[in-house]
Amino acid sequence: MFRHQKQLQFEVKVERPDPMLARQIQEILGGQFGEMTVMMQYLFQGFNCRGEEKYKDMLMDIGTEEIGHVEMLCSLISQLMDGASPAAQAEAAKDPAMAAIMGGINPQHLIVSGLGALPTSSTGVPWSGAYIVASGNLLADMRSNLHAESQGRLQVARLYHMTTDEGVRATLRKMLARDRYHQYQWMAAIAELEEKNGVVVPASFPAEAELEAQPQAYAFWNLSEGVESASGPWAAGNAPDGSGEFVYIDEPLPEGQAPVAKVPAPELHHDLDSSKVLINK
Amino acid sequence: MFRHQKQLQFEVKVERPDPMLARQIQEILGGQFGEMTVMMQYLFQGFNCRGEEKYKDMLMDIGTEEIGHVEMLCSLISQLMDGASPAAQAEAAKDPAMAAIMGGINPQHLIVSGLGALPTSSTGVPWSGAYIVASGNLLADMRSNLHAESQGRLQVARLYHMTTDEGVRATLRKMLARDRYHQYQWMAAIAELEEKNGVVVPASFPAEAELEAQPQAYAFWNLSEGVESASGPWAAGNAPDGSGEFVYIDEPLPEGQAPVAKVPAPELHHDLDSSKVLINK
Amino acid sequence: MFRHQKQLQFEVKVERPDPMLARQIQEILGGQFGEMTVMMQYLFQGFNCRGEEKYKDMLMDIGTEEIGHVEMLCSLISQLMDGASPAAQAEAAKDPAMAAIMGGINPQHLIVSGLGALPTSSTGVPWSGAYIVASGNLLADMRSNLHAESQGRLQVARLYHMTTDEGVRATLRKMLARDRYHQYQWMAAIAELEEKNGVVVPASFPAEAELEAQPQAYAFWNLSEGVESASGPWAAGNAPDGSGEFVYIDEPLPEGQAPVAKVPAPELHHDLDSSKVLINK
Amino acid sequence: MFRHQKQLQFEVKVERPDPMLARQIQEILGGQFGEMTVMMQYLFQGFNCRGEEKYKDMLMDIGTEEIGHVEMLCSLISQLMDGASPAAQAEAAKDPAMAAIMGGINPQHLIVSGLGALPTSSTGVPWSGAYIVASGNLLADMRSNLHAESQGRLQVARLYHMTTDEGVRATLRKMLARDRYHQYQWMAAIAELEEKNGVVVPASFPAEAELEAQPQAYAFWNLSEGVESASGPWAAGNAPDGSGEFVYIDEPLPEGQAPVAKVPAPELHHDLDSSKVLINK
Amino acid sequence: MFRHQKQLQFEVKVERPDPMLARQIQEILGGQFGEMTVMMQYLFQGFNCRGEEKYKDMLMDIGTEEIGHVEMLCSLISQLMDGASPAAQAEAAKDPAMAAIMGGINPQHLIVSGLGALPTSSTGVPWSGAYIVASGNLLADMRSNLHAESQGRLQVARLYHMTTDEGVRATLRKMLARDRYHQYQWMAAIAELEEKNGVVVPASFPAEAELEAQPQAYAFWNLSEGVESASGPWAAGNAPDGSGEFVYIDEPLPEGQAPVAKVPAPELHHDLDSSKVLINK
Amino acid sequence: MFRHQKQLQFEVKVERPDPMLARQIQEILGGQFGEMTVMMQYLFQGFNCRGEEKYKDMLMDIGTEEIGHVEMLCSLISQLMDGASPAAQAEAAKDPAMAAIMGGINPQHLIVSGLGALPTSSTGVPWSGAYIVASGNLLADMRSNLHAESQGRLQVARLYHMTTDEGVRATLRKMLARDRYHQYQWMAAIAELEEKNGVVVPASFPAEAELEAQPQAYAFWNLSEGVESASGPWAAGNAPDGSGEFVYIDEPLPEGQAPVAKVPAPELHHDLDSSKVLINK
Repeated sequence: MFRHQKQLQFEVKVERPDPMLARQIQEILGGQFGEMTVMMQYLFQGFNCRGEEKYKDMLMDIGTEEIGHVEMLCSLISQLMDGASPAAQAEAAKDPAMAAIMGGINPQHLIVSGLGALPTSSTGVPWSGAYIVASGNLLADMRSNLHAESQGRLQVARLYHMTTDEGVRATLRKMLARDRYHQYQWMAAIAELEEKNGVVVPASFPAEAELEAQPQAYAFWNLSEGVESASGPWAAGNAPDGSGEFVYIDEPLPEGQAPVAKVPAPELHHDLDSSKVLINK
Repeated sequence: MFRHQKQLQFEVKVERPDPMLARQIQEILGGQFGEMTVMMQYLFQGFNCRGEEKYKDMLMDIGTEEIGHVEMLCSLISQLMDGASPAAQAEAAKDPAMAAIMGGINPQHLIVSGLGALPTSSTGVPWSGAYIVASGNLLADMRSNLHAESQGRLQVARLYHMTTDEGVRATLRKMLARDRYHQYQWMAAIAELEEKNGVVVPASFPAEAELEAQPQAYAFWNLSEGVESASGPWAAGNAPDGSGEFVYIDEPLPEGQAPVAKVPAPELHHDLDSSKVLINK
Repeated sequence: MFRHQKQLQFEVKVERPDPMLARQIQEILGGQFGEMTVMMQYLFQGFNCRGEEKYKDMLMDIGTEEIGHVEMLCSLISQLMDGASPAAQAEAAKDPAMAAIMGGINPQHLIVSGLGALPTSSTGVPWSGAYIVASGNLLADMRSNLHAESQGRLQVARLYHMTTDEGVRATLRKMLARDRYHQYQWMAAIAELEEKNGVVVPASFPAEAELEAQPQAYAFWNLSEGVESASGPWAAGNAPDGSGEFVYIDEPLPEGQAPVAKVPAPELHHDLDSSKVLINK
Repeated sequence: MFRHQKQLQFEVKVERPDPMLARQIQEILGGQFGEMTVMMQYLFQGFNCRGEEKYKDMLMDIGTEEIGHVEMLCSLISQLMDGASPAAQAEAAKDPAMAAIMGGINPQHLIVSGLGALPTSSTGVPWSGAYIVASGNLLADMRSNLHAESQGRLQVARLYHMTTDEGVRATLRKMLARDRYHQYQWMAAIAELEEKNGVVVPASFPAEAELEAQPQAYAFWNLSEGVESASGPWAAGNAPDGSGEFVYIDEPLPEGQAPVAKVPAPELHHDLDSSKVLINK
Repeated sequence: MFRHQKQLQFEVKVERPDPMLARQIQEILGGQFGEMTVMMQYLFQGFNCRGEEKYKDMLMDIGTEEIGHVEMLCSLISQLMDGASPAAQAEAAKDPAMAAIMGGINPQHLIVSGLGALPTSSTGVPWSGAYIVASGNLLADMRSNLHAESQGRLQVARLYHMTTDEGVRATLRKMLARDRYHQYQWMAAIAELEEKNGVVVPASFPAEAELEAQPQAYAFWNLSEGVESASGPWAAGNAPDGSGEFVYIDEPLPEGQAPVAKVPAPELHHDLDSSKVLINK
Repeated sequence: MFRHQKQLQFEVKVERPDPMLARQIQEILGGQFGEMTVMMQYLFQGFNCRGEEKYKDMLMDIGTEEIGHVEMLCSLISQLMDGASPAAQAEAAKDPAMAAIMGGINPQHLIVSGLGALPTSSTGVPWSGAYIVASGNLLADMRSNLHAESQGRLQVARLYHMTTDEGVRATLRKMLARDRYHQYQWMAAIAELEEKNGVVVPASFPAEAELEAQPQAYAFWNLSEGVESASGPWAAGNAPDGSGEFVYIDEPLPEGQAPVAKVPAPELHHDLDSSKVLINK
């Protein structure tokens, strides 16, 4: 069960309204790597957790924090929209200079939400449950979390330069700091899990079982012209878990057959010959 | 520019058709972490790459390999659907035992694709461009790639147990082995990048710039009842890059204000009072 | 079966083309609460209706009217796009003042539809069948209809202020008037249905059957800090159907257990311990 | 800011696992009217609220409660999936009787989430931000909320009959009771708002401004053959707010023009004549 | 403006309910090539038509007919669901033979629509505005229409074999016959348009303008191993409009450069070097 | 299996960056008829092909070519974004003339992809697997391919006029030329298939089987007021395959019944009467 406190986790104050920035900020609220994503991802991972209590508790701690980040960004967007009005839009249409601004506004901020935040990205695409994952495998999910925080902090960093409003920037700095910590957090959890089970997900499907396929597990297939890729750490040396040595296959050959599919039943109407299907009426 | 060879990368042969399994296999072809996802993700990262040539070349190598994995799974699904027919479906409706099988088939395999693979998940949801990311930041993207291969290998491992068809299993073992290598590959690339720039994405947004927010970067907020989360490596000790020490805030207090939003212009019709908006006709 | 008459239900004439307004008008055509939504919602409710003939007939009357509203908005958008051209776009790119206008245009109005209306919202998101509902329960559906007309008229009212074109405004006034009537209409139907069956949906699931849970049906859980919510009509007094009295629970306590999920079968590869799954090859 | 308590709001215990029911329960978690919808809808309405404090506080109370309902349903689904395994699926494929059950399972519960709840509907469609609305107009939004709770309780009532598991039913009864209260709650809020501003949304767009269109606001257009619709309360008598009298137009005639669209610029390539566009190279 | 007649265009009567068939029939109602698609596609093409009156009128004729086809399929699905109930589902769960049937039902037919048709495909994916096109170019759109009717009739033909219910088959035969006519219709229109303007869309972009690229317009690039493709009519002989002769390039070479992208501004945080971005606070 | 060559199929060089054009170009990369669509459509048709080898080989040739077109457009978009930066955006917000440009940029080109191409349309909607079809019926699919190339070339032609950059135009001319050839190619394949099997899809469902419905196959239903549609080649004369003569039905009458749906089981809670459902607890 959850409870809500009136105060925001951090202060959110803007220097001046800026509807075009409001549209851009939507990306880190309702985009692929916005706060709605990490909130729902951590909550679902926590709700579904079948592992040790410390992981479940930790996921609930951070998932709960992220609900508050959604709240903060909604407040930020509302403040950036303050004072905007449909009538100003009509006025602006007469004046190119103002129309410029208007052209950059998300029309749904006026028409649909009445100056409120939307559950959508910066291009107006609705947030989707397909953005998140809760697989039940802790290491796989922690890696998902680390990637989400990495993409998320990157986007906040880019947005930071897109405004000179020091109020907005102060909020973004708080988020950059939290996203730094959250990267640390997932790295620490990942290190612990890799230590325990090994680095390959899932650890419980043994390499031995891939036996006949085993050489595949160390071979780089050079399928794009040029051998620049041969100079990376994935092309030579030991696998991260020391289980084997990488091989660079310079001129790889296919190992499978040229597939030939069977002709289907006539009721599927592929029309591969010109006879008619007998229709029993 | 690309070229195609007739032979599959690995052999794909099934022992017997199994339409219900065909529906399940769709997950690793057109689902969130299916082969279409890694194929498009690596290709877009490669096409957009503005970094060192070895990364671009490597992304193109593996992206090109993944097109061939999509091809292999299409062949696998076609073979699993061999011999299925609409008429059998009508027959089956009379016999519960057969209807059982039919109920588990994806109806689009009969009606839409005529026994071919579909660009959709195991529940029939079309593949979406929203599954992938190519951010331009190499470390962020490599972490995305590692997470995708982790989720992907996990799903293949689960599917492995959902069939006893040794033909199918042989193909899945090849994919498990490749997914093992691809995890190794991204780990190696990540290690190199972290070595060079540091572990936080993006490295170029300096911690100093978060100065006033700095304590945030080491603090765990305990927002879910209980302190089990205090016993993890994220709650005490040094950050992975040694830049500071973690703090566990047992009873965190909000640091922001209780937000109060301004009343909007009357043309937004929030109806906050009962007077009418003046309509100038 | 349906028939079409050439004339529009109401006159649609614009004073001057305005491509930026055309983009905004798309919201009330193909957005969440656009005319496509009410058209398809009423038609599906009518087609599926298993109730009294007067409801089915009424749903068909208004659903049929709404097809004509889609037609009117398509005509409106076409007129607002009149004279726009790709070449003008190229010219505009040289002149910031004109580029302003161009930046605010939906590029698909030029590239995809050739100046025609699109089945999408103001941000270009395609209309979705997920916007509508036809549940078979008349009261539930009439409430959906009242809500759709309320959101719809609100959006038209906001758009009204976003233009000074008296031709466009005349069309919008017609739509505001019809949306007013449609709100009246659903209110009247709702009142009749509530009178007959009671105000709770579905009426046929009896309150007695919730017996042990009964106190839940009158209790407000104060889960957000502060007691401002205690002063509303939902916090004290009788339920609208007089069946009980509201209770405000100031400091609610959870009544359930702390859930503990079972460890899954090893074939699910949660990796909760470090042993390998036995793979029977 | 939010906090989490370990205990669920209400007890969730199932008598026996039932993966097919788990798939069906997904509808009221991640479907159009599932708990994710009311949770996100109330939270966004609360976060964006620019009205009286009592409304904002109330929205936060109930939005916060709904996060806990998502948590309860995740626990319910996890318990219904307990003990399921990929290997059982393979076994079942041999036995039609068991395959029956397997055919009815959501394959993603095994492959993607490892027995956990998914952010999707009963057919596996991901939850979408397009399901919710927060318009800023309190009356419009409260009507949306009443409709959502009506559809939601209807779905729970139907699901109640789809199982005989008394553990599941006990949880559903709690939800039926809460959904009953929530319908009361929105009715009470609606009554208060209608009392204050009038029944038409938005109240602030005055009927007088629709002046020339005014007769439209009381006219039922009989556009579907038959006059059964004439016997409803929408066809005769006074409007709910007493502002006018309904008129039934038995044989309505269109009032607009037959639209004729202008021929577009040649650069749009409508190919309305056979001459070529001059391409300036 | 539109009008509705109570009678269906053709008779719709089923011999016996069949919920599993109801789920499959959804494909031709709300799937990619279902009746909702042709209905909306023809209506939007008609509404947006800027061409000769005879085309607009024809599009409105057939678009209006298709609304009636949606109506027919809704009636068909309702009849196939007749008598189904949630309680039967609970009973069935005890009996594998009956569970078989239940596993094949779309759960939303019970939970969401209460036995009515849904605006979704056979896998439950909501209909999307992205399925249709109305480009303004008549020839391009008529080709779209011909393709839609081809895919549509193919799907109906496949469904025909999936049932032995002669009532259902009678309705499907009517649809097969109409889809045959509609294919004839678009072929006739296409022939007329090709006669007038030429066969390439758009005709108004002249071949001369592609001058330097001209050889490209007759060259087949053999990019997949093997030369089986050389034996088709696209590899040798004259173009359909006699404007040139096809060339088969057996071993094509790329004609472009190896692209090298510029390093971006540091504010984009690609982290291509290890220096920090200067953050002006 | 596939291989990649470093050089692009054709040269891609722009004269000057143009972020607004980059946004528009996205339509022909990731929109409904963009290069991602034809690439995935041809590849899936090729992978699933159960017909003659020459068709499979041809589909693989052209599908492989289209991967290279995606590559070319990614390079084009990257070059058009060259030099753009988040900081310029912040500067621009102060100057209407520059803000104009900024308002027309896709914010995700800065925030999400860091100047790279996105797998989305010009309005930012992610590419969808629902855009493509591979039905197994060769004639149906070739018609889909012809329609896709027609819509695609139309969009490229329109875009051609939206820029004066001769570098961009040179690339577009190459694509116009290839799209011309591809239209020729599908026309040639279609002619061969129609010659072999007849013009109606699917050919194998015989006209005789529609016997009782037969007149339907030649009748035009005039359901939109006016008889302009009577003057087209679909209204009189012979069907394209000479199998019958068209009939224009000036005043068509419905041939079906007025549908009356049965009242459902009480557990579906349609609330058609006021009695309660008996809940067995």
